[in-house]
Amino acid sequence: MKLYHFPLSGNAHKVRLLLSMLQLPHELEVPSGGAHKAPAFLQLNPFGQVPVLVDGDVVVRESQAILAYLGQRYGGDAWWPQDAARMAQVVAWLSTAANEVAQGPALLRMHHKFGRAIDVAATQARSDALLAVLEGVLAQQPWLVRGKQASVADLAVYPYVALAPEGQVDLNPYPALRAWMRRIQALPGHVDMPGQWQAGQA
Amino acid sequence: MKLYHFPLSGNAHKVRLLLSMLQLPHELEVPSGGAHKAPAFLQLNPFGQVPVLVDGDVVVRESQAILAYLGQRYGGDAWWPQDAARMAQVVAWLSTAANEVAQGPALLRMHHKFGRAIDVAATQARSDALLAVLEGVLAQQPWLVRGKQASVADLAVYPYVALAPEGQVDLNPYPALRAWMRRIQALPGHVDMPGQWQAGQA
Repeated sequence: MKLYHFPLSGNAHKVRLLLSMLQLPHELEVPSGGAHKAPAFLQLNPFGQVPVLVDGDVVVRESQAILAYLGQRYGGDAWWPQDAARMAQVVAWLSTAANEVAQGPALLRMHHKFGRAIDVAATQARSDALLAVLEGVLAQQPWLVRGKQASVADLAVYPYVALAPEGQVDLNPYPALRAWMRRIQALPGHVDMPGQWQAGQA
Repeated sequence: MKLYHFPLSGNAHKVRLLLSMLQLPHELEVPSGGAHKAPAFLQLNPFGQVPVLVDGDVVVRESQAILAYLGQRYGGDAWWPQDAARMAQVVAWLSTAANEVAQGPALLRMHHKFGRAIDVAATQARSDALLAVLEGVLAQQPWLVRGKQASVADLAVYPYVALAPEGQVDLNPYPALRAWMRRIQALPGHVDMPGQWQAGQA
């Protein structure tokens, strides 16, 4: 299978994490020189964005959807639950990843690392609110969906939280969240991303 | 089962649509006087937002997750596919609903209808880009996920697109999208929402 990605995309990194943790052989391709806005790529994803996964004749756009696909097809019940109630808990965190995480810490990183113009105060407030909720949840349970093992939900939320220091977000006030990041980084197959929070870091 | 909602929330309306289309008996409750930020409600959803569905001992927060739950548990394969590749197509549109739709037409409505301060030009551009993609997809197929029947994907994306005129978005340039809205509005069990685009409307 082939993953179209950009090396600095936290969304693409989510997928690289699950591919690695599931030990799925794959090749990587970076659409360079604006290729992600060219007709051939728009056939794969009309939004013209990475990541896109091609697995035989299956094409999946969008990081949360690729996690769902890989979890359901290759990951087993812990990564992607078959029970409707548990699956819905995972989907709720996928929406949180696509909304609050993207509009909070990920957007602060876009601003401080890549110069995107944003409303800094409003984005900081969204980021703070999100991190407070995550801290509250993770103070009570080891993974975002209650259970003994990580699920796709953790991988969907994790990368842009771990990259939050690049957006000048201080993760020090969130000990349960930092313990959760350490648990994720200790999972077999974890792949580091440049700039991520590291155990021992303030 | 019970749905906590606000009558003017497009996100809650998604759930009301599916509950009605699946003919699932339910009661509605509006958390009034700030009850959605009080401890009892935060136990149901730490983000303090509607919609939240309570179905026996199952609690599901977040509109996309509730659609997934109802689709998987009560809806059958057309609403929520079991096949990993098709399910992933649905999940991709759930992310689009949580991201591009929320940050585009839904945010324009928040501004023009409720006075939320936003970057109007940037939001308009995001809304235009989204509507162009939707028009392209729906010019080729009747539903967002290819097939003969509507899926949860359509209900996730539809409400804030149908409410876009309240955000001063002109839907006239998008004939395929308007035909899709007519198809949704013709589905058995469709429930109108005040302010939505109506067939025959410019």
